[in-house]
Amino acid sequence: MLAALKQEVFRANLDLVRHGLVIFTWGNVSAIDRAAGVVVIKPSGVAYDGLKAEDMVALDLDGRVLEGRYKPSSDTATHLALYRAWAEVGGIVHTHSTYATAWAQAGRDIPNIGTTQADYFSEAVPCTRDMTREEVLGDYELETGRVIVERLAGINPAHVPAALVKNHGPFAWGKSADEAVHNAVVLEQVAKMAYLAYGINPQLSMNGELIKKHFYRKHGPGAYYGQQ
Amino acid sequence: MLAALKQEVFRANLDLVRHGLVIFTWGNVSAIDRAAGVVVIKPSGVAYDGLKAEDMVALDLDGRVLEGRYKPSSDTATHLALYRAWAEVGGIVHTHSTYATAWAQAGRDIPNIGTTQADYFSEAVPCTRDMTREEVLGDYELETGRVIVERLAGINPAHVPAALVKNHGPFAWGKSADEAVHNAVVLEQVAKMAYLAYGINPQLSMNGELIKKHFYRKHGPGAYYGQQ
Amino acid sequence: MLAALKQEVFRANLDLVRHGLVIFTWGNVSAIDRAAGVVVIKPSGVAYDGLKAEDMVALDLDGRVLEGRYKPSSDTATHLALYRAWAEVGGIVHTHSTYATAWAQAGRDIPNIGTTQADYFSEAVPCTRDMTREEVLGDYELETGRVIVERLAGINPAHVPAALVKNHGPFAWGKSADEAVHNAVVLEQVAKMAYLAYGINPQLSMNGELIKKHFYRKHGPGAYYGQQ
Amino acid sequence: MLAALKQEVFRANLDLVRHGLVIFTWGNVSAIDRAAGVVVIKPSGVAYDGLKAEDMVALDLDGRVLEGRYKPSSDTATHLALYRAWAEVGGIVHTHSTYATAWAQAGRDIPNIGTTQADYFSEAVPCTRDMTREEVLGDYELETGRVIVERLAGINPAHVPAALVKNHGPFAWGKSADEAVHNAVVLEQVAKMAYLAYGINPQLSMNGELIKKHFYRKHGPGAYYGQQ
Repeated sequence: MLAALKQEVFRANLDLVRHGLVIFTWGNVSAIDRAAGVVVIKPSGVAYDGLKAEDMVALDLDGRVLEGRYKPSSDTATHLALYRAWAEVGGIVHTHSTYATAWAQAGRDIPNIGTTQADYFSEAVPCTRDMTREEVLGDYELETGRVIVERLAGINPAHVPAALVKNHGPFAWGKSADEAVHNAVVLEQVAKMAYLAYGINPQLSMNGELIKKHFYRKHGPGAYYGQQ
Repeated sequence: MLAALKQEVFRANLDLVRHGLVIFTWGNVSAIDRAAGVVVIKPSGVAYDGLKAEDMVALDLDGRVLEGRYKPSSDTATHLALYRAWAEVGGIVHTHSTYATAWAQAGRDIPNIGTTQADYFSEAVPCTRDMTREEVLGDYELETGRVIVERLAGINPAHVPAALVKNHGPFAWGKSADEAVHNAVVLEQVAKMAYLAYGINPQLSMNGELIKKHFYRKHGPGAYYGQQ
Repeated sequence: MLAALKQEVFRANLDLVRHGLVIFTWGNVSAIDRAAGVVVIKPSGVAYDGLKAEDMVALDLDGRVLEGRYKPSSDTATHLALYRAWAEVGGIVHTHSTYATAWAQAGRDIPNIGTTQADYFSEAVPCTRDMTREEVLGDYELETGRVIVERLAGINPAHVPAALVKNHGPFAWGKSADEAVHNAVVLEQVAKMAYLAYGINPQLSMNGELIKKHFYRKHGPGAYYGQQ
Repeated sequence: MLAALKQEVFRANLDLVRHGLVIFTWGNVSAIDRAAGVVVIKPSGVAYDGLKAEDMVALDLDGRVLEGRYKPSSDTATHLALYRAWAEVGGIVHTHSTYATAWAQAGRDIPNIGTTQADYFSEAVPCTRDMTREEVLGDYELETGRVIVERLAGINPAHVPAALVKNHGPFAWGKSADEAVHNAVVLEQVAKMAYLAYGINPQLSMNGELIKKHFYRKHGPGAYYGQQ
């Protein structure tokens, strides 16, 4: 069971590299087994070359290491905060992917201006507020998770499967590690398209009906995209 | 006959990935056998890995499935509307390719400012109007086809082999599935060049004579590009 | 002799694809044997896949075909005009490479703002003027060569080994087909860097001394870059 | 000993190509053996194809060649100036990587606006001043090193492991050739992200606390990133 979860998390971490979202060790994926209460995550700062499934670290939801000879990712406390807040989330990804990070550095939400984004996001990709001096100097990675949860207040995380941490970069999530990676790829692509679209037309307008239509073509009881 | 058409459509769908126009399942190609009245299209939301030629779906021009165990692409009604409107079109492509989609999100025609575009397009790449609430909530994919046809009114679709659906993305077409894919690649490239050129010179001017010259160097009775 | 020249031109054409400067048939390379008075150039509109060295077309400087079963590139008259004007040029390349073409569409010289460009160009990459209606409707490809030569008046073509044809794209040249391809790659890279630099600082200033220093570090009697 | 250093420098030079920082011969890596007082550097203008470890050139800190049949890189005097100024530096890289060079051509520091940069740089990536006519016409490569050292006055080079030479391009350094290459890759990535972020929000603000937090999460006595 844990071996299978480690395998899934291991492969999902490699997928980040394959999709061009991560260079060096600039990213991490985790997944949770809700029944067992076990989170598996990449070790901190270990190069992808030579990384093995058994190097993944297993923890409980309070951050106590259950298995693993390595220290877990330095962003572990952020992942755990999201798992504790959102029962429906099964996998989480953090990257410094180029265009999503640029929006995070700019401190701006990514407006939902096209059906590419609307197929996955019911609204803008939210960017968190500035963290306070106390939050940064305190339990920083935990506080990072908290500002994400704060920013998503009143939003269904399944309808907005990613957020930007201001001046930092994106976190994405999904029902599994694989879906979280998929959403991280989508996020990078919509971040790029929105960057370019605003370069063409800084006053561009949205079509709210169209956005909603595309989201619900793929989500909820009326969905009809894909097989069955 | 149908097997050959399925093979052509299957390969053309893979070509979208090979040319970098499509990630995941974000695109579809169809082709029509006019004599038989049969359209073949990619199934909806099926991953390209493992996709086979026999998975392609065959329909008549009214959308009745003739062969295929999968549901056809969710954009099928758009393809069919174009085939019904334009007797000379033999293949259609839909993608969310990055730069063309950015222009669509910006809601702008791509001006014909260079010979690269003029070799294929006699004028700008047109962008459709906003769809109304009724169109979006009604038979949406059919209405998408209708706004494309409406936008091309008075334009020979062989002289403007692509259009942008506002806030959505590009459709391209041609005499065959292969030519439609070719035109989708050209569109993405000219969309990128136009984006960059306006970044260099927002007041850039066109040379109408030169545009016309290049188009007719490759099209019509006076064409002299290529062999014979 | 001619077989060796065809081989060089053939390989140089493939190099355009390998360097990412050309898709489909959007480019051509030629070279000249000055002693024999023979120019070899790619055939018009023939796909690179399956192209062979013996498919190259040999002509004299007046455009009479000497060898070859294909029509020569539709841009042949432009190449010949440059060979006739500039005795020191041995190879010529035409592409629609992305950033260089964007500058051509913008109708702007590429200012010499960095040592990357100065290592190859003693000044800006010049952009030609608008062609007149008469030039476009007349012997268009020959006139294209003439506006390039007109724009380079008073400039040593070995010191400015490329130009942009307005609304069209770049031509690059060198002592051989290989050097012309090399210069076409350099041009695309400096076109990209200049695009980005102006995006960062629209008022950027040049350092004329530095530009000159770098050019003459690689060219002329005082050159000391490389192995003697 | 020298063979090992040559091997390291040779592989590091190839890594520049592999990471997409260098085309043709547009880059060079060196490393120093402080105990032996020997610097090893790439030869000048030799193509990477066919380059061998034994082609690397060994010099003392005053630039006298100790071993090697080739002339050393034309930028050797710049490398030596940095080694003489900074005892803690063990490897140096020079490239014309696209985005970092664009910032250098724009004559601007790269502001530290995100944690990606802050993980490696305690502040902005500094850009040098214009060189004077005397510096350019004098011992140019030595003077290039001097303006870098001048610009870093009062800054710990281990805390700011790269600089931009105005109108030229980046130099990066580290404890070894490998670390210098790593930092050159980081620099190019943060240069791209900063370019994009300013395109989204020209008035973007920094979070000084967050920048400091990330730098010291990875550096100094309180560091806790990675496997100790």
